[in-house]
Amino acid sequence: MAITGLHQARTPRIRLGMVGGGRGAFIGAVHRMAARLDDHYDLVAGCFSADPDRSLASADMAQREARRKDGIEAVAIVTPNHMHVPVALQFLRRGIHVICDKPLAHTLAEAKRLARAVESSGVIFALTHNYTGYPMVRQARAMVQAGELGDIRLVQVEYAQDWLAEPIEQTGQKQALWRTDPAQSGAGGALGDIGTHAFNLARFVTGLRLEALSADLHSFVPGRRLDDNSHVLMRFAGGAKGMLWCSQIATGSENGLRLRVFGTKASLDWRQEEPNSLLYSQLGGEQRRITRGGPTAGTASARLVRVPAGHPEGYVEGFANIYSEVAQAILARREGRAPDPEVTFPGLADGLEGMAFIAACVRSSARNGAWTALAL
Amino acid sequence: MAITGLHQARTPRIRLGMVGGGRGAFIGAVHRMAARLDDHYDLVAGCFSADPDRSLASADMAQREARRKDGIEAVAIVTPNHMHVPVALQFLRRGIHVICDKPLAHTLAEAKRLARAVESSGVIFALTHNYTGYPMVRQARAMVQAGELGDIRLVQVEYAQDWLAEPIEQTGQKQALWRTDPAQSGAGGALGDIGTHAFNLARFVTGLRLEALSADLHSFVPGRRLDDNSHVLMRFAGGAKGMLWCSQIATGSENGLRLRVFGTKASLDWRQEEPNSLLYSQLGGEQRRITRGGPTAGTASARLVRVPAGHPEGYVEGFANIYSEVAQAILARREGRAPDPEVTFPGLADGLEGMAFIAACVRSSARNGAWTALAL
Amino acid sequence: MAITGLHQARTPRIRLGMVGGGRGAFIGAVHRMAARLDDHYDLVAGCFSADPDRSLASADMAQREARRKDGIEAVAIVTPNHMHVPVALQFLRRGIHVICDKPLAHTLAEAKRLARAVESSGVIFALTHNYTGYPMVRQARAMVQAGELGDIRLVQVEYAQDWLAEPIEQTGQKQALWRTDPAQSGAGGALGDIGTHAFNLARFVTGLRLEALSADLHSFVPGRRLDDNSHVLMRFAGGAKGMLWCSQIATGSENGLRLRVFGTKASLDWRQEEPNSLLYSQLGGEQRRITRGGPTAGTASARLVRVPAGHPEGYVEGFANIYSEVAQAILARREGRAPDPEVTFPGLADGLEGMAFIAACVRSSARNGAWTALAL
Amino acid sequence: MAITGLHQARTPRIRLGMVGGGRGAFIGAVHRMAARLDDHYDLVAGCFSADPDRSLASADMAQREARRKDGIEAVAIVTPNHMHVPVALQFLRRGIHVICDKPLAHTLAEAKRLARAVESSGVIFALTHNYTGYPMVRQARAMVQAGELGDIRLVQVEYAQDWLAEPIEQTGQKQALWRTDPAQSGAGGALGDIGTHAFNLARFVTGLRLEALSADLHSFVPGRRLDDNSHVLMRFAGGAKGMLWCSQIATGSENGLRLRVFGTKASLDWRQEEPNSLLYSQLGGEQRRITRGGPTAGTASARLVRVPAGHPEGYVEGFANIYSEVAQAILARREGRAPDPEVTFPGLADGLEGMAFIAACVRSSARNGAWTALAL
Repeated sequence: MAITGLHQARTPRIRLGMVGGGRGAFIGAVHRMAARLDDHYDLVAGCFSADPDRSLASADMAQREARRKDGIEAVAIVTPNHMHVPVALQFLRRGIHVICDKPLAHTLAEAKRLARAVESSGVIFALTHNYTGYPMVRQARAMVQAGELGDIRLVQVEYAQDWLAEPIEQTGQKQALWRTDPAQSGAGGALGDIGTHAFNLARFVTGLRLEALSADLHSFVPGRRLDDNSHVLMRFAGGAKGMLWCSQIATGSENGLRLRVFGTKASLDWRQEEPNSLLYSQLGGEQRRITRGGPTAGTASARLVRVPAGHPEGYVEGFANIYSEVAQAILARREGRAPDPEVTFPGLADGLEGMAFIAACVRSSARNGAWTALAL
Repeated sequence: MAITGLHQARTPRIRLGMVGGGRGAFIGAVHRMAARLDDHYDLVAGCFSADPDRSLASADMAQREARRKDGIEAVAIVTPNHMHVPVALQFLRRGIHVICDKPLAHTLAEAKRLARAVESSGVIFALTHNYTGYPMVRQARAMVQAGELGDIRLVQVEYAQDWLAEPIEQTGQKQALWRTDPAQSGAGGALGDIGTHAFNLARFVTGLRLEALSADLHSFVPGRRLDDNSHVLMRFAGGAKGMLWCSQIATGSENGLRLRVFGTKASLDWRQEEPNSLLYSQLGGEQRRITRGGPTAGTASARLVRVPAGHPEGYVEGFANIYSEVAQAILARREGRAPDPEVTFPGLADGLEGMAFIAACVRSSARNGAWTALAL
Repeated sequence: MAITGLHQARTPRIRLGMVGGGRGAFIGAVHRMAARLDDHYDLVAGCFSADPDRSLASADMAQREARRKDGIEAVAIVTPNHMHVPVALQFLRRGIHVICDKPLAHTLAEAKRLARAVESSGVIFALTHNYTGYPMVRQARAMVQAGELGDIRLVQVEYAQDWLAEPIEQTGQKQALWRTDPAQSGAGGALGDIGTHAFNLARFVTGLRLEALSADLHSFVPGRRLDDNSHVLMRFAGGAKGMLWCSQIATGSENGLRLRVFGTKASLDWRQEEPNSLLYSQLGGEQRRITRGGPTAGTASARLVRVPAGHPEGYVEGFANIYSEVAQAILARREGRAPDPEVTFPGLADGLEGMAFIAACVRSSARNGAWTALAL
Repeated sequence: MAITGLHQARTPRIRLGMVGGGRGAFIGAVHRMAARLDDHYDLVAGCFSADPDRSLASADMAQREARRKDGIEAVAIVTPNHMHVPVALQFLRRGIHVICDKPLAHTLAEAKRLARAVESSGVIFALTHNYTGYPMVRQARAMVQAGELGDIRLVQVEYAQDWLAEPIEQTGQKQALWRTDPAQSGAGGALGDIGTHAFNLARFVTGLRLEALSADLHSFVPGRRLDDNSHVLMRFAGGAKGMLWCSQIATGSENGLRLRVFGTKASLDWRQEEPNSLLYSQLGGEQRRITRGGPTAGTASARLVRVPAGHPEGYVEGFANIYSEVAQAILARREGRAPDPEVTFPGLADGLEGMAFIAACVRSSARNGAWTALAL
């Protein structure tokens, strides 16, 4: 009764490569854990160098893998932002699916170029806006879609950190260095790094299209070249309004991502730092705490649950949900069938909107907060 | 050993009158409890009618009290906003101290007129921005003053309610009726009712002067004539920035006033709904929970504490602190001495700033969020 | 339209005397605020001396007040425990109603003697187990009575403080001195001071009669003569079980009184330090947060609410509710009518049970935790 | 630059087998994720049948694997309790390391037999008291060891669930069936399933030896044969005291494991449902929130951290820490060196104590709560 190759028996694994994510690059390790957790992937090839010809190296890797019979089927790109598009192009041209870290690109123009390439290639393209992988975020979205909030009026979202409260990029801290460098990060600092996550989360849960925004970007730390704090007012299609705040200098904050959505009938409140519950308040009712895996959580979240209610799942599990959703899509493609309709993960459209969001914020702020439409 | 007039022995009480605050007017009852709690006042005269000649009635009352040997020394004004100034003028002209509900006036111009009258009269004028009476708000302010936060960079303040999420003013609900009526409330709806509280709280704790703001005012409820939700971006003298959100349609919110202040060295976080603790986070340290009456709370809060740490004090106690502070000032005046330097309560300057804040928000919003200076 | 004697017009006030509660005696000040808050009482006589002939002095006071035409109708007794009964006897013999601090007496035998005297006198006797005055405690009790929890299985109650974690009685701290002195406190230390509160709270909310207990009393601080920590297992009539923990050496605890009640259908969770909400969890449902004054709180709590939901009420307000309930009873008595059936406050029966609880705990602990019946 | 076998390059993986943990057995899936997360193991053999000759099947598996050159080096045992020892014996006799679910055995006698076999075999034996793998539990333990709490006085621990609040074993629910069956579970119901976790957690953090206990075990659900709720008083060597409560009928509870430890200088408070922070309160100081990965967390926790502070880690990560610690020990053994002194995981001694704890509780409860020594 001994079973060898236990999990291959259950599901054929996907051969995965990775570009970027060497030592000191926290996000690379996260992608690897996320790929491993549910056993859908074998990481078989990597290109972790941080030197300038990474793009060349990844071209080599893409070429070699494409030629191998057992070459990779998908690649994870976890480089600084400016490398996302050049690297992605190498792989998707060769029919290799792409799982790319966010934000999508260095500029909106570059992002659009990538979008065209993806479309013509036909590969699956996923963007790791990982917070959409949390089960209670799925629960929130399903509740909005089911009309449980009524018409949405307000969207209050924030993402507060403090790790850039001091000029640590001047001490050579690697994570800080590239994130505060426009050449590597693009036009957004905190905005690109975490503001896009906050925006994407709001977008994912509410389904509302952002029409226009007014932004006040600022670098509080002397000498810093990109915003380390951004205040944004938002107007959504249909009349909802909102505020977005992202900061990397909010002393005492770790990863304070919080989304509140207020409708005519009820509101939702979710916090990344305590992601296993979702607060739901009906007008005229009490605040209720819906828990991940709990009796009143619906199928949209239940399908992503690994351990019973009260046993917390965290960041890696949420991230792994993205990887597992992508795996469902890749396996369906492999087998020539449509993926389960419930499978969902952020992709190109999210990436383009994120880049348009950054661009609009930068433009609005440069015009002293003039209301600026999102140009897609 | 029986003692009659027990508390008079401890401190001579102040004869207090009240205008407004009849049945159904929640705030009048609060003022009365606040006046009573620490036994500094005797409420001996009242004029509670809500009819149009209240101003005339209060003129009569002011006249009569001024003539009596045992007439009132102070009056509490708890009418709708448009009556604050006319009523106040009646009393201060006769040398009667005024404790006035907020916002100060109906318009900024009217507020300025009142300010001149107060100055020439020499009476004590207090404005019940009652949240400044919470001990942990005093603690927060003292910590800012002592430099424990370093230079302030960010001020995030919000006040969320939901009691106006539906058009209850159309059903004749009394509290809603006047608060949504520009003739009685002035130019600000949520802004005047709770936004000024939020603004005043931020001002009180940080000491920072607001230079300019960009506002997006909105009435979500059809037919409503004043804002029921306002989003405001702020720029303070010295470079700090901030956001202010006030809403009366934030479903599931009761009285969600929260202030966060982030400095270069530390941050503070205080919530009105759990007012007995103050969260304090030093950069590179842990979040600490300073409690009212606790071992590490300083004298600024300790002097306002009635019961031991862990025994909660609430809204009425915070309100009573304002009344008791004013009592200290009145008693000092009576005795011809300067009040204790620690005695502080909101007054005319706060009221004027509040009116300027409303005016600037309305003007900015009318100009599609153009950054607008606070005109004092 | 000026009204003099405003509140007397609304309700005739009750003339109140006080014994004990001089300077440094925190609880005396609390009783005075509680009496004042809702304006039902005039404190007109006091006997605050802490010297040994206080009993004599209070006899004098009782005699004198009884003779006066405008003598006191009720007396508040806020002395150390051993004086409760002797002082109470002086007043009740003269037909003066008694509001007594807890625990009822020094010993169970003495408590029984008092009980007989109260019965024969016909006066109203209230015991300030003040936590039963919190609106959400009333809410909890009403929910239990309405069967919303089903059959109760478990009662977990605790009251944790840390102010006696060090031998401060040896430094002469006044509050600590008498509370750790068996001659003044009786047989229970933490047990008498706060354990009886915890027990009474559980009893009030659940309505369950405690049949037997097993206790482990201990003095952790060297030289202390009364328990500073007690662990108690409980068995209730009907089969429910429970734990009670009270401690005055639980480092980091302020006034951590918490009650959890688990039934076959639902559970309740209430914490004194955040008293304005009650957590309610149905089997198969979510945890719901019922708020004081909120839309789903019932009449049992609503009748005690002073300010809107989200504006916290605290310890003094809860205490004042006891005073106001007693006032209702006294006024009804004065007017020869039955009080409103909703009026309720702790009295003799609670006091006797509390003394029996202490006695049973002491006896059980002396017999190494043998299960011991409550002897009433 | 493509790297094949990426992770093997980093660390040679351990070949792992598994017995038990088929479909519907939640804990088997958890073990597999835990083994996978940090990439130290290859699960290459499994025996998942739930039929009566599982013991025989696992004997076959053990024999076969022992003969293979690439046979497994370690086995995870995730069967119902009564199979732990028979299965473990099959593997350890053949020199295969054992990772066993808790509690260790069916009876204390059987556990002792296993202990002797483990000792003579020399294999590594780990028991998955997984809560000891949470970083903040490690932090707590390190703080106790460093004397930051002073002398420990009190240990309050509880583990509350509600999934057995109704007689679901009578409906055939698989998890409930064996856990309420003495033949499969042993003498403890809730006690064995979660009480041993609570006990082990207290033991791990405090290091205190439990000398004696007084227990009140009960089955609230009619027809249930094992305790579904247990109340335990504890006395530790050195004088500390404590309470342990475990329940599977605590309506509204999910996995409410909480440990509080109070010392002469400070206290700690940790909750499994929010495991990423540890509350630390010094006498005379504030409550501080130490966060996983935060600036003031020490090395004992930091070595187990995967993602930055504020990004939550959960149950699987804590479980995986146990697996990764065991992997360190196995790799060290393989390489003939001592493992890093910081490597720690629960093992035989914990398992024996757990069985002794169950036995003492059952004995005490049968003698109506008589204080009973732990017999090891």
